[in-house]
Amino acid sequence: MASMSAVLSKSPFLSQPLSKSPSSDLPFSAATVSFPSKSHRRGGVIRAGLISPDGGKLVELVVAEPRRREKKHEAGELPRVELTAIDVQWMHVLSEGWASPLGGFMRESEFLQTLHFNSLRLDDGSVVNMSVPIVLAIDDEQKASIGESKRVALVGSDGNPVAILSDIEIYKHPKEERIARTWGTTAPGLPYVEEAITNAGNWLIGGDLEVLEPVKYYDGLDRFRLSPAELRKELEKRGADAVFAFQLRNPVHNGHALLMTDTRRRLLEMGYKNPILLLHPLGGYTKADDVPLSWRMKQHEKVLEDGVLDPETTVVSIFPSPMHYAGPTEVQWHAKARINAGANFYIVGRDPAGMGHPVEKRDLYDADHGKKVLSMAPGLERLNILPFRVAAYDKTQGKMAFFDPSRPQDFLFISGTKMRTLAKNKENPPDGFMCPGGWQVLVDYYDSLTPAGKLPVPA
Amino acid sequence: MASMSAVLSKSPFLSQPLSKSPSSDLPFSAATVSFPSKSHRRGGVIRAGLISPDGGKLVELVVAEPRRREKKHEAGELPRVELTAIDVQWMHVLSEGWASPLGGFMRESEFLQTLHFNSLRLDDGSVVNMSVPIVLAIDDEQKASIGESKRVALVGSDGNPVAILSDIEIYKHPKEERIARTWGTTAPGLPYVEEAITNAGNWLIGGDLEVLEPVKYYDGLDRFRLSPAELRKELEKRGADAVFAFQLRNPVHNGHALLMTDTRRRLLEMGYKNPILLLHPLGGYTKADDVPLSWRMKQHEKVLEDGVLDPETTVVSIFPSPMHYAGPTEVQWHAKARINAGANFYIVGRDPAGMGHPVEKRDLYDADHGKKVLSMAPGLERLNILPFRVAAYDKTQGKMAFFDPSRPQDFLFISGTKMRTLAKNKENPPDGFMCPGGWQVLVDYYDSLTPAGKLPVPA
Repeated sequence: MASMSAVLSKSPFLSQPLSKSPSSDLPFSAATVSFPSKSHRRGGVIRAGLISPDGGKLVELVVAEPRRREKKHEAGELPRVELTAIDVQWMHVLSEGWASPLGGFMRESEFLQTLHFNSLRLDDGSVVNMSVPIVLAIDDEQKASIGESKRVALVGSDGNPVAILSDIEIYKHPKEERIARTWGTTAPGLPYVEEAITNAGNWLIGGDLEVLEPVKYYDGLDRFRLSPAELRKELEKRGADAVFAFQLRNPVHNGHALLMTDTRRRLLEMGYKNPILLLHPLGGYTKADDVPLSWRMKQHEKVLEDGVLDPETTVVSIFPSPMHYAGPTEVQWHAKARINAGANFYIVGRDPAGMGHPVEKRDLYDADHGKKVLSMAPGLERLNILPFRVAAYDKTQGKMAFFDPSRPQDFLFISGTKMRTLAKNKENPPDGFMCPGGWQVLVDYYDSLTPAGKLPVPA
Repeated sequence: MASMSAVLSKSPFLSQPLSKSPSSDLPFSAATVSFPSKSHRRGGVIRAGLISPDGGKLVELVVAEPRRREKKHEAGELPRVELTAIDVQWMHVLSEGWASPLGGFMRESEFLQTLHFNSLRLDDGSVVNMSVPIVLAIDDEQKASIGESKRVALVGSDGNPVAILSDIEIYKHPKEERIARTWGTTAPGLPYVEEAITNAGNWLIGGDLEVLEPVKYYDGLDRFRLSPAELRKELEKRGADAVFAFQLRNPVHNGHALLMTDTRRRLLEMGYKNPILLLHPLGGYTKADDVPLSWRMKQHEKVLEDGVLDPETTVVSIFPSPMHYAGPTEVQWHAKARINAGANFYIVGRDPAGMGHPVEKRDLYDADHGKKVLSMAPGLERLNILPFRVAAYDKTQGKMAFFDPSRPQDFLFISGTKMRTLAKNKENPPDGFMCPGGWQVLVDYYDSLTPAGKLPVPA
């Protein structure tokens, strides 16, 4: 793991400080360049820097060190709400400002705006995107125990207070409506719904959040969990004049790598001098048949070792959000959160955050709706959306390449299901699909699931 | 019916021309007053007039007389799409600009923005509200018959072309997602869904609409169907300096009347000189157990004859839209359409456009969500939302009055279900609930449904 700690360190990658770059000394302002129009060029000089956070100021909700003891004491006196693992992940998301300007679990007005408009109107009349409800459910018993208190302590699974929620509002949890409006279906079998909503309480509690300590998971990966503030610092240090974010929750194959390097090439062609890739795997809850975070991080390490991506222009970090699998609704959240981390370009693929319909034999979402909805979403006007070009295995070149519709017979599409089946059966994909080290991690992962001596798992 | 034609004429009500009013001679501009804040007062003088239509210009899509012959000839040559009765109602809505600035059945980008954001972003970056999809479904066979044509003729039930749709776009009709995102449920038994979506085609066709003739129904009520342009003309003629719209799809009882007169009183107190009520019953599709339009219009006539509302300050007209029963989503449409007709105040009640859950024993929507969502809706910032005060039968006064929470025992709530049961059984409500003439219309309606000699219908 030595190479991993070098490649994927808390200051990601061995980077040459780019203090020569003039933009690193300039105050960063909102980049409002658009892509692929030419409006970003102003006499050949790109005026850009880190995009400003939603609401103008990055929200940070971790209590400052000097006040922690006092706050912990206060928390000890309050009615208690116990958090699930997913609640903790959302608390983490809120505490670091990924959902800026949201200052805590949603009150009803925020919840309703999210469900109906995928956006929040701020006091000054401006609008920020907010497509996924970030809410905390409680049951009748917890509601009764809170009584008339205007504050509660949020408590981890070990029974210790981890946060205080103040000026609270308790309102009904309309589960069916929440599910229908977020996922566009109420079919049974939606992973997040079954994990976090169906058995959750019938009330939601919103309020102003104060988190008592920075959230840690002690899984060996905390050093990769950079907050938006830390990412901004790193991106500024590198003198980024464009930041393009790539959300992923799957192993990286050479098609992804091609896309990322090609995006950098296009940004350089546009006149940017130092575009930085934010390679940003999702670290929160994922469904059971996704590859777990720890194995994905191992796989990403091998891909990076292989030199497919340039460490000097890549920042790898973990995005702490849980996964909804809510397609066009969720991709807005994925994009919006990355604005708060400093990204002004967002790469969007086919069927982002999508999955198969849980009941019918079809994809849950139209594969093109994600990028269409994202491109029209309120509050994301400042973000440049980069549609994903389809990469497939080009048999004539023996490598991943952008699909050429004039010679479809030359291309092989390797779906996630196909990839998983190959890895489970310890078969190899075509040469050039993924670097051998990365592929071996997948094989090892599936091997770890198979009881010794068992036959290969069928698809 | 003599009095009806006087009271509810195409120029509604015998009105004294108010040309004395200075505002009737002024050019009307967008009224951006808010309520109940004091920002509407500017040195004691209210600067207001008819609110401008969404998008700045009222859309009118009926082909001008001189070009109708030519357009009809063109339509005869095009592939044909047959319209259902509800399609015709939406075509009517579009043709008169209730959905301004929408210029025809939605293309996919409008459909997606409606589903996800309840609003449309215009080319100039401004946002208008649009919460309900106005779409036209076609099936595989119709799609095949259209082929590569960029225009189609829309055809009425008699087989004659009634409109042309140009620059068409055909895209998938994601029924489940449409239903889930519009209603917040996919439970079986939603009236509009069963009537207009479940058996509709799997494709949607959008485009620019040209309607060949003004839409008429020849049901004796066409004279009450004023277009937004006609309503604006009437309101200008009356010199309205505030227009408050009241959407209804039920018989009017004295609680409604109290609310409307009280609203006028409040507007006068605010300094408006000539607030006009737009009493605006919905005239399109309603569910089977609602009272039909023709009977409702008879009932409204009796209520108006009774003098509960002042004809000089009331305009009665029919709103041609079909009913979705989609609660907080639909109330936005009801409000937005009235902006286009010149209303700058909108009265919103408890559970607007709501109904019982089709499967569970509860209301489908939280009774307060409608007004909350409406007050936060994108594109409705210019509209003043007037929350409905709850009226109930005050037993101590023997009349409808605003509910006084300090003496709940004195009030009787008479639900729509209770009212229907009483009328079906030819029983009388308490004196003062509704004028006797209006009540008799309801009794007559239910009587017309009951086969002679049958026993009264139980609830």
